[in-house]
Amino acid sequence: MRSVSIIGIGQSPVGELWDRSAREIAYTAISAAMADAGIDRADALFLGNMLSGNLLDQEHMATLVADTCGLHGIEAAKVEAACASGAAALRVGAMAVASGFHDVVIVAGVEKMTDTVGKDTTAGLATAADAEYEALHGVSFVALNALIMQRYMYEFDVPLDAFAGFSINAHRNGANNPNAMFREAITLQDYLKAPVVATPISIMDSSPVCDGAAAVVLVPTERVKEFTTGHHWGSVQILASASANDTLAVHDRRDPLYLEAAAISSQKAYRQAGITPQELDLFEVHDAFTIMAALSLEACGFAGRGEGWRLAQEEAIGIDGQIPISTMGGLKSRGHPVGATGIYQIVELVLQLSGRAGANQVKNARLGMAQNIGGSGATIVTHILGS
Amino acid sequence: MRSVSIIGIGQSPVGELWDRSAREIAYTAISAAMADAGIDRADALFLGNMLSGNLLDQEHMATLVADTCGLHGIEAAKVEAACASGAAALRVGAMAVASGFHDVVIVAGVEKMTDTVGKDTTAGLATAADAEYEALHGVSFVALNALIMQRYMYEFDVPLDAFAGFSINAHRNGANNPNAMFREAITLQDYLKAPVVATPISIMDSSPVCDGAAAVVLVPTERVKEFTTGHHWGSVQILASASANDTLAVHDRRDPLYLEAAAISSQKAYRQAGITPQELDLFEVHDAFTIMAALSLEACGFAGRGEGWRLAQEEAIGIDGQIPISTMGGLKSRGHPVGATGIYQIVELVLQLSGRAGANQVKNARLGMAQNIGGSGATIVTHILGS
Repeated sequence: MRSVSIIGIGQSPVGELWDRSAREIAYTAISAAMADAGIDRADALFLGNMLSGNLLDQEHMATLVADTCGLHGIEAAKVEAACASGAAALRVGAMAVASGFHDVVIVAGVEKMTDTVGKDTTAGLATAADAEYEALHGVSFVALNALIMQRYMYEFDVPLDAFAGFSINAHRNGANNPNAMFREAITLQDYLKAPVVATPISIMDSSPVCDGAAAVVLVPTERVKEFTTGHHWGSVQILASASANDTLAVHDRRDPLYLEAAAISSQKAYRQAGITPQELDLFEVHDAFTIMAALSLEACGFAGRGEGWRLAQEEAIGIDGQIPISTMGGLKSRGHPVGATGIYQIVELVLQLSGRAGANQVKNARLGMAQNIGGSGATIVTHILGS
Repeated sequence: MRSVSIIGIGQSPVGELWDRSAREIAYTAISAAMADAGIDRADALFLGNMLSGNLLDQEHMATLVADTCGLHGIEAAKVEAACASGAAALRVGAMAVASGFHDVVIVAGVEKMTDTVGKDTTAGLATAADAEYEALHGVSFVALNALIMQRYMYEFDVPLDAFAGFSINAHRNGANNPNAMFREAITLQDYLKAPVVATPISIMDSSPVCDGAAAVVLVPTERVKEFTTGHHWGSVQILASASANDTLAVHDRRDPLYLEAAAISSQKAYRQAGITPQELDLFEVHDAFTIMAALSLEACGFAGRGEGWRLAQEEAIGIDGQIPISTMGGLKSRGHPVGATGIYQIVELVLQLSGRAGANQVKNARLGMAQNIGGSGATIVTHILGS
């Protein structure tokens, strides 16, 4: 198997991009990634996207985006795994290069969730859950996460304000990210007085509905030198890539408070990279909801069961903490354009591992992990990158 | 790169399966493929599906199907490229095995297009076209193909009944396929008096709206023997896999009557397999519309420009013809559950290449090609299999 490296990254700002359609947002990210890599063609484009069929009445999105970018005669396919679509697409791109099917591959993620005429974005997001056994009963995606958070608080006797630190950390970091949707730091008071979406989840526990796209360029590590001459910044290697699934419906889980798929995929990733979690310099968690950050930290070996919330403090997860998370704002502050999120996480890891993360630079960052979650823990994809 | 072989196949009947939801139809095909392969687990499931988000309000379909099949803790992802989703998913499965990411991979395709409450299947199919520049103007997917067919007839001075032979051949073959949707042979008279859908396309030129699922099991060729001992039927090798795209909108093509992506992907496939088209024993074409069969035969080297329709005769494309096509009924008679079609084609090739095609067996079939088309020629995936 050939080793795979990233030689280019690009991203659009995240926000309510009412003046741009999905294809234009994707073009922004892909053209930036191609320029960053110094390439003007590619062998394939794999696109992470969840909702184009449901919200935009547009399938065939990968070929549409390739077309918009002037990439004809190449392979193009969309990869979908709900909110884990971005990382799922990265895996396909990595397989394409590792196998020798392709040499130069673009992996992008794009989502357009706002300004979708006549469509219901909340209902769209619920398509990540089981349509016939969960969504049919009227439960929304945030409601499913609220049920999990409520149960967690009850089971482990955790107060609501215990989660505030995840949100405060994300906003503190997002304030320095020019592409973040929310660039204001928040206080504990802001967290406590935030409007509730679905008890106990408030808007400060949950990531926003938004638009955005991110992209990376992959090549075989053995060919990196051909692309990184001159003023090029270098490259970052994919040291591990693993994916695991669980039951789609939360009610089918043995334990709805344990992200079994996160445990499986992170353990696989640690083995592939030959490291322990303690060796990681940073971790881009899937903090779509604060409860998910806590559960992910537990399942990935950073905290015991029911103890993940104790890490929600600056000395633990801040830029200079033991395990910095959401270093560019995470899903909460940078934003969560669902099918693009997994690629934003990778772009941000690459920024950190190549020393280009600006004010949020984690010192001497050499090893970083990203975890992208689809549904309420039903598909979990973990990547470890190294510089 | 590791060579990849198919050791198991399965399919559901194609039709209006009102008594079964998408997950159940997929289960039928996947459980059959696993039994055929003699396996009770797999490392990954890649699922070709186009319309679940648009018609069923269900994304995250691959994990849902894996869950239904009792496959937990594995990788699951949906691959979408409009009507080429099945073959696009097969490519991803092949990459996963070729790269060494996985050893035992299930690739399935599923589509549920009928009995979709409150949804418009015709509008769903139009999501394969450009939503903002084609579908917005009210053109349906069959209308786009009708425009192409009309222009072809004008440009090359071709009479309407010239296409009848494609439909007659498909129905003659489908009559012997127990899983085909339409199992009646048709005559030239039936073709000529068929109701028109969009001039000049009649129902005898177009594939039906239907439900169905098909599945295959992939392993590295070097490990085939471990799985094919005892009463197992053997295996079929993937000799070539290629994909190419074109502009999404037909009006952006240099020549709307030439399937450039078919030419690129078939030429790549011939090179990979080290063969000429004349060496193929059969060809499963993407006859979603009779015009597409003609254009595909031209672009893949079986006929000159404007001459593909001349092959629509039994001595050319029948089971005993020069290049048998649609040997189990094709999209026209077996049916076209869009995201599953690419896998049905592969299942049918495997039946032929392993001598299990029954009354429709192509004698001494050793080399077969399948071509799966997304949109009006915007994504074209070609596979060549060999026994």
